[in-house]
Amino acid sequence: MEFDTENGPYQPFEKLCLLAPGLLGASVAMACKQNRTAKSISIWSRRASSRAKLVDQPWCDEVCETPEQAAADADLTVICAPVDFIVPLYNLIKSSLKPGAIVTDTGSTKSLICRQANVDNNDSVYFVGSHPMAGSEKSGMEFGEADLFLNRPCIITPTEDTEDAAVRKVIQFWKSMGAVTFIKSPEEHDEIVAHISHLPHLIASSLCNLIDRNPDDWKLLASSGLKDTTRIASGDPSLWKAIIESNREEILRALSEYQDDLQRIHSALTNGNMVQVVSILEKGKQFRDRLS
Amino acid sequence: MEFDTENGPYQPFEKLCLLAPGLLGASVAMACKQNRTAKSISIWSRRASSRAKLVDQPWCDEVCETPEQAAADADLTVICAPVDFIVPLYNLIKSSLKPGAIVTDTGSTKSLICRQANVDNNDSVYFVGSHPMAGSEKSGMEFGEADLFLNRPCIITPTEDTEDAAVRKVIQFWKSMGAVTFIKSPEEHDEIVAHISHLPHLIASSLCNLIDRNPDDWKLLASSGLKDTTRIASGDPSLWKAIIESNREEILRALSEYQDDLQRIHSALTNGNMVQVVSILEKGKQFRDRLS
Repeated sequence: MEFDTENGPYQPFEKLCLLAPGLLGASVAMACKQNRTAKSISIWSRRASSRAKLVDQPWCDEVCETPEQAAADADLTVICAPVDFIVPLYNLIKSSLKPGAIVTDTGSTKSLICRQANVDNNDSVYFVGSHPMAGSEKSGMEFGEADLFLNRPCIITPTEDTEDAAVRKVIQFWKSMGAVTFIKSPEEHDEIVAHISHLPHLIASSLCNLIDRNPDDWKLLASSGLKDTTRIASGDPSLWKAIIESNREEILRALSEYQDDLQRIHSALTNGNMVQVVSILEKGKQFRDRLS
Repeated sequence: MEFDTENGPYQPFEKLCLLAPGLLGASVAMACKQNRTAKSISIWSRRASSRAKLVDQPWCDEVCETPEQAAADADLTVICAPVDFIVPLYNLIKSSLKPGAIVTDTGSTKSLICRQANVDNNDSVYFVGSHPMAGSEKSGMEFGEADLFLNRPCIITPTEDTEDAAVRKVIQFWKSMGAVTFIKSPEEHDEIVAHISHLPHLIASSLCNLIDRNPDDWKLLASSGLKDTTRIASGDPSLWKAIIESNREEILRALSEYQDDLQRIHSALTNGNMVQVVSILEKGKQFRDRLS
């Protein structure tokens, strides 16, 4: 599949619908208002208290009582719910969508979601998975930022059956907010994020557990290095449970590879093979320096 | 051992000597000037080009051609060299020190250094190990900051033979720069830093190695989470080689514990025991939230 990846003028969406906004959803709304991505933004949030807050937001044109109401007549609907609620929400709104409507999401895993969303799909509405690689260990609309996606990667995950025109619209959507878009299959996406996001989360959590079992004053001695290495461990455990469950096979593969790597370091240290240890340190530095 | 841990006025040092300053040493000099910790600062650096740069620094009163010249008459000498050069430098200057002189260091490991420095010690000069838990993945005097130690922990590691008066002076020294001082034995220090600093470094390096073996565009998809988790992997491999070598036994112990923890996650994931996975995520979050 080839896509026009040029930046440039495009038609704003008439009506954008956001379902279940948290940090990501609020940021999408702010960014879309700032960049005139959509003429009108309708939002549904599950909690009445959140809906009450939405009424006052300049980036929200309409607050709806149900997902179906918010999605009706929308050209594009973005489901911002936790990964295990994305397909249920999609199934709920599907029959209320207008012909030609496009639905995307912001979920951290894609294979299960894209596969399930495309079961029983009719030809008049389109589901295209998205995963903006932005966010933070915080959650909640109050942490939203209009610039959250600026120069950040966003992976778009069509399947072999996805209409090119729908994919192109979703690319335009993320580009309008300044994101740098990449196209991957849902399976390839899940393999990648298992390595670059889910494994790091488990690594950070485990390290916190290990240090936590030791005397309390060890915490007081932590340098900024430890704080950075473990920052993502502050993520919401219930969100992460759902992410890990929905990408278990790929995470297990990445974790096994990583365990093998640690065992290699362990052996090198045991044998006093500092040449091998230094080679790992050097490759690590080269990689990390290029990441900046 | 009990020490007065009050902040408060104290006598500035007449002459402070810094040997082999990099980021830490330059920061010590800047902080000591700012806080009037010493009336005069003499510095030796191995490279002639570094010595030439030192001449122009407002935080350097005297640049010396040899370590012995810089340390002569100093009340306090701080050896800022890489861990494998600290004891050799100490042995070099020892006979040039005046009676009552105190020597400390900024090395990341302490058992080997403090044990070796106190061999053949005479009673007229005192070696007290220090490890300020501050710094960065960068190295070099040009990255020095006067506030580097402000509110940062500094571990001071006397042995059972160390004179209390000398320890008290070293505590005052670090406190004058705003550091929060902790007293640990060199052995306890090394166990702690194996867990909170050296293991995290190996974890970050290994993760970089793992991702580096995969397609190049994976790097483009990295979120700020991965960048933070791996930041410390940019540290200088030759400095880290020396640190790891001098704390090999403790690092191996910490690494083994960590490998056991990862294996527990691996088993829980394999068995679909999400209750255990969530418990690890929750403990990790609790620990990390308290660290902030």
